[in-house]
Amino acid sequence: MTVPAIPSPLAPLQLRHLETLQQAYGEVLTRLGLDGVLLYSGQPRRHFADDQEASFAAYGHFMHWTGQADLARSWLLIRPGQRPRLKIHAPDDFWHLPAYLPDEPWGEAFDIEMARDDAPPLLPAGRFAVLGDVSAALAESLGADGNPAALVGALDECRVRKSDYEIACLRDANRQAMAGHRAAREAFLAGGAELDIQLAYLSASRQRETALPYASIVGLNAHGGVLHYQHYDSVAPARRRSLLLDAGHRHRGYCADITRTWAGPDADPAFAALIEGITALQRRLIDALAPGVDYVELHQRMHRALGQLLAEQGLVHCTPEAAVNQGITRAFCPHGLGHSLGLQVHDVAGRVDGAGRPLPPPESDPALRLTRELETGMVVTMEPGLYVIPMLLAPLKERVAGRDIDWPLVERLADHGGIRIEDNLVITPSGHGNLTPAE
Amino acid sequence: MTVPAIPSPLAPLQLRHLETLQQAYGEVLTRLGLDGVLLYSGQPRRHFADDQEASFAAYGHFMHWTGQADLARSWLLIRPGQRPRLKIHAPDDFWHLPAYLPDEPWGEAFDIEMARDDAPPLLPAGRFAVLGDVSAALAESLGADGNPAALVGALDECRVRKSDYEIACLRDANRQAMAGHRAAREAFLAGGAELDIQLAYLSASRQRETALPYASIVGLNAHGGVLHYQHYDSVAPARRRSLLLDAGHRHRGYCADITRTWAGPDADPAFAALIEGITALQRRLIDALAPGVDYVELHQRMHRALGQLLAEQGLVHCTPEAAVNQGITRAFCPHGLGHSLGLQVHDVAGRVDGAGRPLPPPESDPALRLTRELETGMVVTMEPGLYVIPMLLAPLKERVAGRDIDWPLVERLADHGGIRIEDNLVITPSGHGNLTPAE
Repeated sequence: MTVPAIPSPLAPLQLRHLETLQQAYGEVLTRLGLDGVLLYSGQPRRHFADDQEASFAAYGHFMHWTGQADLARSWLLIRPGQRPRLKIHAPDDFWHLPAYLPDEPWGEAFDIEMARDDAPPLLPAGRFAVLGDVSAALAESLGADGNPAALVGALDECRVRKSDYEIACLRDANRQAMAGHRAAREAFLAGGAELDIQLAYLSASRQRETALPYASIVGLNAHGGVLHYQHYDSVAPARRRSLLLDAGHRHRGYCADITRTWAGPDADPAFAALIEGITALQRRLIDALAPGVDYVELHQRMHRALGQLLAEQGLVHCTPEAAVNQGITRAFCPHGLGHSLGLQVHDVAGRVDGAGRPLPPPESDPALRLTRELETGMVVTMEPGLYVIPMLLAPLKERVAGRDIDWPLVERLADHGGIRIEDNLVITPSGHGNLTPAE
Repeated sequence: MTVPAIPSPLAPLQLRHLETLQQAYGEVLTRLGLDGVLLYSGQPRRHFADDQEASFAAYGHFMHWTGQADLARSWLLIRPGQRPRLKIHAPDDFWHLPAYLPDEPWGEAFDIEMARDDAPPLLPAGRFAVLGDVSAALAESLGADGNPAALVGALDECRVRKSDYEIACLRDANRQAMAGHRAAREAFLAGGAELDIQLAYLSASRQRETALPYASIVGLNAHGGVLHYQHYDSVAPARRRSLLLDAGHRHRGYCADITRTWAGPDADPAFAALIEGITALQRRLIDALAPGVDYVELHQRMHRALGQLLAEQGLVHCTPEAAVNQGITRAFCPHGLGHSLGLQVHDVAGRVDGAGRPLPPPESDPALRLTRELETGMVVTMEPGLYVIPMLLAPLKERVAGRDIDWPLVERLADHGGIRIEDNLVITPSGHGNLTPAE
């Protein structure tokens, strides 16, 4: 196992990140009358009645301190004003490579025990909570509160605004993901099947499938219109109209989430024009990002811009406003403009305000995952899209709105699936920064 | 999703497989006083406090009828003398590709319902059991026995002797895995890192990581001595001494499990000689496979042959018998000779006799997974190995046995990790057949 040391500009940032975290946890624990919290990293589960394990990702709040996405069966005790105590499961085992620790500042900032067992550590006297994939019985045996909602909500809120260290990690994850996107595009233009494109992506971004922050969406032709398309065909289609690739990278725990759409040699010219239109639309929406902006309002603005694009490209014969009001833009784009991004691809606390009060999405936009006001340090995706989804468009034919749609053009585009262009943005005091490098 | 029709020689075999299965289930259910059994395929689990899912493999007994390893949230009702009834979860969903059915005879032999919900079907009047990843509460709500041990054991036993259809599937899985092994060897000789070798394997065997029957073991140099080495380094080592590749394929549910070991350009000549020795030893052990053979005795024979090889190659200076009796061969090879293979890579019922009575492994060989007498139709792996595992060899230095070991030679071999050669064999009335094609 090659464990490169942390590069020098990152090391001091990581130490400051830990100091900030220690202070934030201290305040939360004190406010909730707790002497500490025990974070469990979790463990992979076996397939039912089998001895093979499913893929695994460590608990987000455990990663917030350690960045270790694959450290299983380990326990981290955090107490106000005291050094974190980490118990790592590292049995004498010639079957597996033992758990290792990277050469990073967090390792020196913690008291670390390499243990043969994976039992939770004994807690000191006091009032503690235990968070993670643990049973109520285990929490009780420790004399601790198991996953109390008030504490989980408060710690989720500590993940909303990213530290400089986290932003640097997210930028690195983006850089590596973009290398994958470039190679995937080449594999597509060379005639590869979805499986080949995914493997080219993994090879250039230097990662295995089970380490991805989410399953890559590799949609050729109509598959691009299946929003979370989850297969990889091993045979290339006869005609190559389009590729929609939504694929990320996890770096020191932090996730990139990038989507690009490319027209193939067999694309209809109208499709290439729509890709240009969505790309320009996305840039205009990104320009609006700044502290204090209401993300729900930005999402509504995306729909007005989609109405405009549909009218400009002749997909509708009504006004942009009518396309929005009749639900036409929502049939062409049923998902949200984006979401919070961090240690999870759909990061925590996207639908609450800073005090933990629920902010449900509007009834018209149930899939929107981010409904709060933007603040400095938040990292969000911006991912407008446009798809031909028969299940959503067909019902419009029966309604008055159907008369405003150019059905022959929809039909010409159907085998192209759809378009999504997605970057990752950090909110800064003066506006925003784009973490996703240019292609 | 490209769904090729089942090739013609396989279709009639599949129908016969289903008839045999219907009869075997009928006998078991009648004997246990049951009117039927409901098999649940299972469902992927989400990572804790996240919306991303872990990898998934369907329940073995569900696959025994359908061969579908990724069909989640589906229910199969089997009753003596009646057509199987399958309820597939297929909601209206533009987020995911809906569940599809391959064009295979089993689809016509079943009554199939595509349902929007994933609730278990209502059971007819009578006494039923439900098997799979279901809670006791759910079984009770159905008025059914949940995972009764007698039924599970009897159905496990129905999987021990493979039908001609299953053997054909296992042969196909082997053919595809071997294409991957060839490409992986080329990637190794071209200087690839473990990650590159794994991706070359996946590309040539046409599969994604999460569809593998088990995580490929791609061990360069000393990593070959970590028996279930679970990482893929993304950087190639400076010296290429060895590659141990243990990698399979799942085809229509059935698993291949093949290991090869190759010497690299920087290998010690003694290592290449040991690969030849293990390869020849494996062939001799395979020659002994036949109905009525005791697999435990075959495993003991492997140790005698390993003692012989260690003496011939100068790794020990004692007799082969002394190498076995002093535990030296078990320090060089701590795993079993092989295991049963089928719908799971370590298939069910390996440590019971035909009546379900436990057959624990000998105390000297706790890792041996197959302890029963071989019968026609069984499919087993044959995988002798030889490793330099410091954790096991170091204690011998303190004992009398340590005087018989050539430590300088062990040291020269240490960075090569180890050797394993593994094929998949079917037991036939006249002896055996090798399902693994020549390289």
